[in-house]
Amino acid sequence: MVKIKDCSEEELVRRLHDMLGTSMPQQGSEGKVVCGVGDDAAVMETGPDRYLVSSCDMMIEGRHFDLSYTHPRDLGYKALAINLSDMAAMGATARWAMVSLAIPAETTLHFWEDFYRGMLELAREAGVAVVGGDTTSSSTIVVDVFVMGEVFPQQLICRFSASKGDCILVTGELGSSAAGLYWFQEASMRGIMEKSRANPLIQAHLRPVPRYREAAVLRNSRVGAMIDLSDGLAAGLRGICAASNTGARVDYNLLPYRPEAELLAEKAGHSLQDWLLYGGEDYELLFTVPQQYVDSLKQSLEVETGTPAVVIGEVTGPEKGMILINKSGAESVIDPGRCYRHFT
Amino acid sequence: MVKIKDCSEEELVRRLHDMLGTSMPQQGSEGKVVCGVGDDAAVMETGPDRYLVSSCDMMIEGRHFDLSYTHPRDLGYKALAINLSDMAAMGATARWAMVSLAIPAETTLHFWEDFYRGMLELAREAGVAVVGGDTTSSSTIVVDVFVMGEVFPQQLICRFSASKGDCILVTGELGSSAAGLYWFQEASMRGIMEKSRANPLIQAHLRPVPRYREAAVLRNSRVGAMIDLSDGLAAGLRGICAASNTGARVDYNLLPYRPEAELLAEKAGHSLQDWLLYGGEDYELLFTVPQQYVDSLKQSLEVETGTPAVVIGEVTGPEKGMILINKSGAESVIDPGRCYRHFT
Repeated sequence: MVKIKDCSEEELVRRLHDMLGTSMPQQGSEGKVVCGVGDDAAVMETGPDRYLVSSCDMMIEGRHFDLSYTHPRDLGYKALAINLSDMAAMGATARWAMVSLAIPAETTLHFWEDFYRGMLELAREAGVAVVGGDTTSSSTIVVDVFVMGEVFPQQLICRFSASKGDCILVTGELGSSAAGLYWFQEASMRGIMEKSRANPLIQAHLRPVPRYREAAVLRNSRVGAMIDLSDGLAAGLRGICAASNTGARVDYNLLPYRPEAELLAEKAGHSLQDWLLYGGEDYELLFTVPQQYVDSLKQSLEVETGTPAVVIGEVTGPEKGMILINKSGAESVIDPGRCYRHFT
Repeated sequence: MVKIKDCSEEELVRRLHDMLGTSMPQQGSEGKVVCGVGDDAAVMETGPDRYLVSSCDMMIEGRHFDLSYTHPRDLGYKALAINLSDMAAMGATARWAMVSLAIPAETTLHFWEDFYRGMLELAREAGVAVVGGDTTSSSTIVVDVFVMGEVFPQQLICRFSASKGDCILVTGELGSSAAGLYWFQEASMRGIMEKSRANPLIQAHLRPVPRYREAAVLRNSRVGAMIDLSDGLAAGLRGICAASNTGARVDYNLLPYRPEAELLAEKAGHSLQDWLLYGGEDYELLFTVPQQYVDSLKQSLEVETGTPAVVIGEVTGPEKGMILINKSGAESVIDPGRCYRHFT
């Protein structure tokens, strides 16, 4: 018998897509599905010029978070943040969220309230109303947040719209969350880098700021394809390349990172490249833009949000695959299989 | 420290309502929240005459289902059914569903596919598109389904609209799911009632049919308040009475049930009344209607859906509380605390 762990995630998504495809209402009918399985969020037509966008992400204790260093406020914040990141990746405006929370009956009321307080901090910042919450009991904590949002059809950004020759850009910095996680997980790191120094990395891991302000600029720009980097840069590149039937050529020397991440990698004898390429949970936006629009887009983004975006490579033909130019200028193949995998 | 298990569900809902209230966008602004925490589903204004309705329900292995007698197809079916029931209770039409599924990596691909097949059976019947599915790994199975639907403002039915003097009606039969669960859980029952005889009860437990067809009739009728009976009749009555600030007076002799449930109760020496009043997961609709409209409503429902609805009592003033007239005509207080509780 084939088991789930024997299937790649692409295989599961493909099978799901095949099964669910037949459940879709007919094209042109009310409630038409514009985007189903296979993008950051689902998109449904609700009116002549309105799309409803929805996403969900489940976090499980011991798998996605560790309560020994995650405060319930951080947990609530992050559970919403990762969904707002999915909405941002579609160019959508998140409006409403619902929460399913399973917790042990022994949990304190204080913990439960702090979880919601953390979520509401971000909800208020982002203008999202938390409209429902279901609490049930279980032996370990499970958090599942659903977010609904809206986007005008002409502003929707999908994964499949990259074109050969486009520049590939990324917002903010890569690898910070993976470095922060490493700092938490390796007790020996405490001696190598103190908490205050590691703080930007810790914050990136515990409280990733979703790029919804940046998305509001990008959806009015000449962006081709977009994806969020929840599973790492290599997985994001594969997501765009597979959907757009393209290749990609990325220059390692152009990847943005925090000096703290470089310092930690150095002190710990860990590969910085690993964090930048394969570290998950950055929640930065990866997107493609025709070359002639890059400068004005970067400027708008910086002026309106204060967030830098940098060109890290270009979209190539599908026959080229995904190539990395490394420090010394040599080329190697980017292996998305080294990114975060849900079943291994 | 106060723990979650020390709080009643009403207490948790009240606290959540207080916390989330402040996160709501202002009345009149875009994306106004019509109904938040405290009803079967959340309702949001998306256009001048359109409401978006959403609900979610999490099911956890060992707590909400037992794989020793639940086939993955049944699990997929039921996970969607309980959400369609919530949508029906609001008078809404369910349109789209998303699924978060956490399963052990050792699960077979066949199990996973069967889960979706079962869900799609119901999705096709009900005209719902399953637009996304997230699969992640965990030690026990967790299913969280999120359903989005639509309702015209004038067709929305909430819990808070019951009026003193209204008749209280219920669709279908009560207690079948609880009786079916009892049959599964007590191995000795196998000798008392064979599977073929218990089958309608088993079906009611494994594959509850959500009352979406009935809701399509009821939203065009003179229904006051409505709720689904996911947690049992007594909890449903409390839900309406608390929201509407009324009491209720229910006649036990009018409660509808299947002969198989009565027979099983008799043979097992179990209280039938317990199943009818406090047994959860019936997914019938409980609603209130002014007396003069009862006959025509019952007829429309029977003609258009084949489903009977019966009057089981009347709405009274809040000072009367919730009263049951028992078999012998004596009165007693209905105690919703005996219904399914999530943390005890």
